[in-house]
Amino acid sequence: MNIGLLGFGVVGRGVYEITEGRTDMQVTKVLCLEDIQLPDAEAVKDIKAIVEDPSIHTVVEAMGGLHPAFEFVRAALQAGKHVVTSNKALVCAFYDELLPLVREKGVSFRCTAAVGGGIGWLSELERSRRVQTITQVGGIMNGTCNYILDNMTTQGLSYEEALRQAQALGYAEANPSTDVDGIDTWHKVILSSNIAFGVSLDPKTVPVAGIRNITAQDVEAFKAHRLVCKLISTGKRTEDGYSAYVQPTLVKQGQPEAAVPMNYNLITFLGDTSERMSFFGQGAGRYPTAYNVVQDLVDVLSGKGFYAPYGGKAAADNGETMRYYVRGGWDGEESENWGSGVITEPVSVDAMHSWLKDHPDGFIAAVAC
Amino acid sequence: MNIGLLGFGVVGRGVYEITEGRTDMQVTKVLCLEDIQLPDAEAVKDIKAIVEDPSIHTVVEAMGGLHPAFEFVRAALQAGKHVVTSNKALVCAFYDELLPLVREKGVSFRCTAAVGGGIGWLSELERSRRVQTITQVGGIMNGTCNYILDNMTTQGLSYEEALRQAQALGYAEANPSTDVDGIDTWHKVILSSNIAFGVSLDPKTVPVAGIRNITAQDVEAFKAHRLVCKLISTGKRTEDGYSAYVQPTLVKQGQPEAAVPMNYNLITFLGDTSERMSFFGQGAGRYPTAYNVVQDLVDVLSGKGFYAPYGGKAAADNGETMRYYVRGGWDGEESENWGSGVITEPVSVDAMHSWLKDHPDGFIAAVAC
Repeated sequence: MNIGLLGFGVVGRGVYEITEGRTDMQVTKVLCLEDIQLPDAEAVKDIKAIVEDPSIHTVVEAMGGLHPAFEFVRAALQAGKHVVTSNKALVCAFYDELLPLVREKGVSFRCTAAVGGGIGWLSELERSRRVQTITQVGGIMNGTCNYILDNMTTQGLSYEEALRQAQALGYAEANPSTDVDGIDTWHKVILSSNIAFGVSLDPKTVPVAGIRNITAQDVEAFKAHRLVCKLISTGKRTEDGYSAYVQPTLVKQGQPEAAVPMNYNLITFLGDTSERMSFFGQGAGRYPTAYNVVQDLVDVLSGKGFYAPYGGKAAADNGETMRYYVRGGWDGEESENWGSGVITEPVSVDAMHSWLKDHPDGFIAAVAC
Repeated sequence: MNIGLLGFGVVGRGVYEITEGRTDMQVTKVLCLEDIQLPDAEAVKDIKAIVEDPSIHTVVEAMGGLHPAFEFVRAALQAGKHVVTSNKALVCAFYDELLPLVREKGVSFRCTAAVGGGIGWLSELERSRRVQTITQVGGIMNGTCNYILDNMTTQGLSYEEALRQAQALGYAEANPSTDVDGIDTWHKVILSSNIAFGVSLDPKTVPVAGIRNITAQDVEAFKAHRLVCKLISTGKRTEDGYSAYVQPTLVKQGQPEAAVPMNYNLITFLGDTSERMSFFGQGAGRYPTAYNVVQDLVDVLSGKGFYAPYGGKAAADNGETMRYYVRGGWDGEESENWGSGVITEPVSVDAMHSWLKDHPDGFIAAVAC
């Protein structure tokens, strides 16, 4: 199988290295704006050299960003080529454009590395769907946030110190918004829910709260109550539909989520017969991510399509109530005062996130227990 | 696909229930010594009614035990039928009889539920092998031992109290030897290693130490050093072969293994590109186990064979050295005295297990950190 590789950065180069020497697939062209010399592949600068080349069966998108990645992926699909990508923002933002096109063209479309990096998460959801109804997905899906929160908890660092450390190690970007504001996690839980439940969740109905405003004082208060703060995503079936949200969440010390160290992920699904199944691993990094891209290429070879049927559009309904830790001007009912913040009486997820929108300096964390 | 089900106990009944109503497979005959009436399947008492029935494509062995399960499975394979089992003792004990027969007959042979119950562990090793070299497997593979150790650690129970609780909840048998002496874990790590590395490890070269002799005083000493005792299995590639063993192991509080609660499992593989990947879930129970049996049946339908090539026989070599906590007459070099026991200087795994054989009332736990 001949592969056209779009992009030769962290992930693209990893894919090139892992496929080198395989007999069942080879990268024959690489789209790259810089001048590169490769022993086994031709470097090209025009996407047409790939999408109009009939000898290329599969396109791997490893450019990142929405544009022109979307236009290139669409052109590849329209040309009848299989597509593999690790670009969660792309798949999430253009789900309703890409999936019908994939179905119409009868090609493979895989994105396992988009959620959990090297964890075989989306492929396991696909496997799980064969036998049971998946009732819930979610967990710790962003290694950068986990690194920051873990270092605040275990080393007593301030948010700014922990962020700087994450940036120095290359875990966080100079502009860390995609990670710390929960956008990356939001993309991942929407994509996971779409595949687990066979729907297309409206992203506008999935609220997200990040960790940007957490302070060392907040973390101290959590510790005093034997709680650990993690950024946790949730997508689940409800009695009459779906609910989905991303928010800092306080879990008990000793629980599996509380013990997730450094930049690791812990992602979980619940099923009506398998019960709880969780996956712990490196959620990012060149080789883990490229590993799952190559796994997808093997699945393309074996004729797999997408992970789930393309389901109808659905809105998440987050009327579920829970208690929250809140700091920053909460004037609703409170059950406890923790000094730095208060614990609310049960309040709906939608109401709490709506309050947060009006209080951009505030911080909220759901109480999981 | 017509299925002949051997046994109608915990797992067998679960498989029957999950497959009911599926259009791609149906249980048409059930081998059961008791008189049962089933709406959609014929109950039979003679194995010939199944292995000599040309309408049956696949046999599910859910009887447990070595005999006559082995003879029945062998007869089914010889008759050219695909076989699915969750019986780790059977697959492990007769690996060198069954695998060549599977290859000769060109049939499917699946046993995903044999390791990790509902966790898609062996199937993920199979997937992983497609792209990378797996370098290590292992972890917490026995929920009964984890339940006992967790309750000793968190509730301060004695071994006897924790065992009685596990028995009352149905997690441990009246004779708990298979679990607490590490036999179950030993089967699982040998089978996992065979599949991960494509070999047939000689079980006699894989030493096993269990938890039968652990005391509340041992656990107190571990806690004082911020350590948690878990029964951990290891199988790995070494420079010139393989090493494999099962032993109580002291892990640091805050590490993922230390946080595994109740009767859960945490199983891990390391690969040269994916890095660390761990799986956390219910390692036993009717529906999780039956779930993976039915997953195997779907894989039979899609033409999958066994998980890995049947590799040559190999002996594990456990010359690796580590420090141990030892109680019960250790007369080798020691580096620390913990009151209830001592911490040794580094000693080889083989030497330590050999000492334990001569000191059946002793207790050892490897120091992982």
